[in-house]
Amino acid sequence: MKRIAVDVMGGDQGPKAVIDGVLMAREELSDFTFVLYGNEDQMKAHLPENMKQIEIVHTTEEILGEDEPVKSIRQKKDASMVLAAKSVKNGENDALLSLGNTGALLASGIFIVGRIKGIERPALMPVLPVENSDKGLTLLDAGANASCKSKHMVQWAEMGSFYSQSIRHVENPRVALLNNGSEFDKGDELHQEVYQLLSDRPNINFIGNIEGNEVLQGKADVLVADGFSGNVMLKTLEGTASTIMGVLKENLLNNGLKVKVGAGLAKPAFKEISKQFDMAIYGGAVLMGAKAPVIKVHGRGDGRSIYYAFHQVDEMLKQDLVQQVKQAFDKK
Amino acid sequence: MKRIAVDVMGGDQGPKAVIDGVLMAREELSDFTFVLYGNEDQMKAHLPENMKQIEIVHTTEEILGEDEPVKSIRQKKDASMVLAAKSVKNGENDALLSLGNTGALLASGIFIVGRIKGIERPALMPVLPVENSDKGLTLLDAGANASCKSKHMVQWAEMGSFYSQSIRHVENPRVALLNNGSEFDKGDELHQEVYQLLSDRPNINFIGNIEGNEVLQGKADVLVADGFSGNVMLKTLEGTASTIMGVLKENLLNNGLKVKVGAGLAKPAFKEISKQFDMAIYGGAVLMGAKAPVIKVHGRGDGRSIYYAFHQVDEMLKQDLVQQVKQAFDKK
Repeated sequence: MKRIAVDVMGGDQGPKAVIDGVLMAREELSDFTFVLYGNEDQMKAHLPENMKQIEIVHTTEEILGEDEPVKSIRQKKDASMVLAAKSVKNGENDALLSLGNTGALLASGIFIVGRIKGIERPALMPVLPVENSDKGLTLLDAGANASCKSKHMVQWAEMGSFYSQSIRHVENPRVALLNNGSEFDKGDELHQEVYQLLSDRPNINFIGNIEGNEVLQGKADVLVADGFSGNVMLKTLEGTASTIMGVLKENLLNNGLKVKVGAGLAKPAFKEISKQFDMAIYGGAVLMGAKAPVIKVHGRGDGRSIYYAFHQVDEMLKQDLVQQVKQAFDKK
Repeated sequence: MKRIAVDVMGGDQGPKAVIDGVLMAREELSDFTFVLYGNEDQMKAHLPENMKQIEIVHTTEEILGEDEPVKSIRQKKDASMVLAAKSVKNGENDALLSLGNTGALLASGIFIVGRIKGIERPALMPVLPVENSDKGLTLLDAGANASCKSKHMVQWAEMGSFYSQSIRHVENPRVALLNNGSEFDKGDELHQEVYQLLSDRPNINFIGNIEGNEVLQGKADVLVADGFSGNVMLKTLEGTASTIMGVLKENLLNNGLKVKVGAGLAKPAFKEISKQFDMAIYGGAVLMGAKAPVIKVHGRGDGRSIYYAFHQVDEMLKQDLVQQVKQAFDKK
């Protein structure tokens, strides 16, 4: 049996989204037990009659979006996220999933679940949809670290390669570095150093630098970024896509009847795009370097996003990804 | 008379785009002399019979896109860009415009035209189209500096405010800092320091941090970024927009006749978007901190882009922006 601890309190929709996801995934993941941490009263309305594979752990506290991460996990000892993390630390459960406060989840992953020996700086790793590939682009660090050293970024390249290979089934993943130009000497000292270190690693298939405008072009399988610019890049990408689609929609609806009719006829094309850039199918962002799978699902996530995140956890446990990383870094 | 030195050799279309731009702008900018630096043979076919306001300086060398910036401006002494820059340095001409190698143009601006006293690190400053504003978002640094200190970023905030006020006619421009979160303590040490310094400046209307997803939302008039993440952000923004529009076009054309007809009917909406996010109307990217207006137009720029860049130069010379900056930084 695989036991997954789910913090049901953090998402925009509250427990509903999580329970929807559980009900969608339950049959397919018949060896899963979904252990739901949260306020039982708030869960009640959404729970099914048949509680097969579902366990409830009633909690009385909750970490809020505005809470200061490290402080809140120390002070709110009975928060759903904290108790769920502790259950993974104790070995009661195998993985942790939350839609809540990202900083607090990172802190829970690092300080409660714990770091793998040898990994100094765990990284936040989402997988992005890109053109010309259904394998996605594995990005790390998307923002767990506001500053870092070159050696950390090399570890991220290695962990990203493991993930891309084992979970996204990419053979010999192409690893690129997010930089401000294509040549080897681009960027500040940090990025020049990382370029050199990655070039020298026989176990990393390093293909060089990638600039912001190339991220979606499917040129790489793993993208290594310092946590600051990785965060800026990811948010810019999401914001630009959302702004363009929003403005497009507005213009299709407010430029007269002819345009509106045209938009109706062209709908299959818009659906096709949403499908091509559907981030949910890749699951949540993983805290790579933690001693167990720790998954952050977007606060806006719905049942479908959570369904895919459960499948992602399933694959991570099946492939024993954490063990792979442990072994690789224990040798060093 | 305003005399503008134009390097005609660097753009994707060669001299044609520049000369198209000159012909579009000539009548409106009747006090301009357009001094075209480049290979006369290549210009010939595109020049008008009436050469009013146009002068030609024949040059025999050219800086290429792949040339190493600083080395090339030193070695190619007769390159169109270098001679155009020297003419501004010598006071023969008042401003420099090029579509060529960005790095080489930055080097020409800094080492040939020269830095304003007190400005240690000139910054590259494009203006981006945003939602809910026709004033644009003035971004600096977009990539002139791979690394920088907090005091440089504060100077950029001041120069960006001058530009936004004088050229984009924004009263009391709202200045934001590109960061990885909204709170004052977000980011690495550099960004925390800049936040503090900007908060303390009475002459800067600092409104706090902006994250990547907020850039297009029109919340600020000036966005200060370290040159590395500013570059990543700008390229990500351009790349995401271009990928989405490309995929949209492809899907509208290849999803059967009904969709294609719908796309035809909806065309006014697509045109409206192109108009709303038209970057050309704001002109080129300015090297802020140089002793004269130095403008980089995108290599892909056409006559229309260059037309707007000439108007931008006109406004910068009319408002004597360089003098404003000089005075502000000389006091210190």
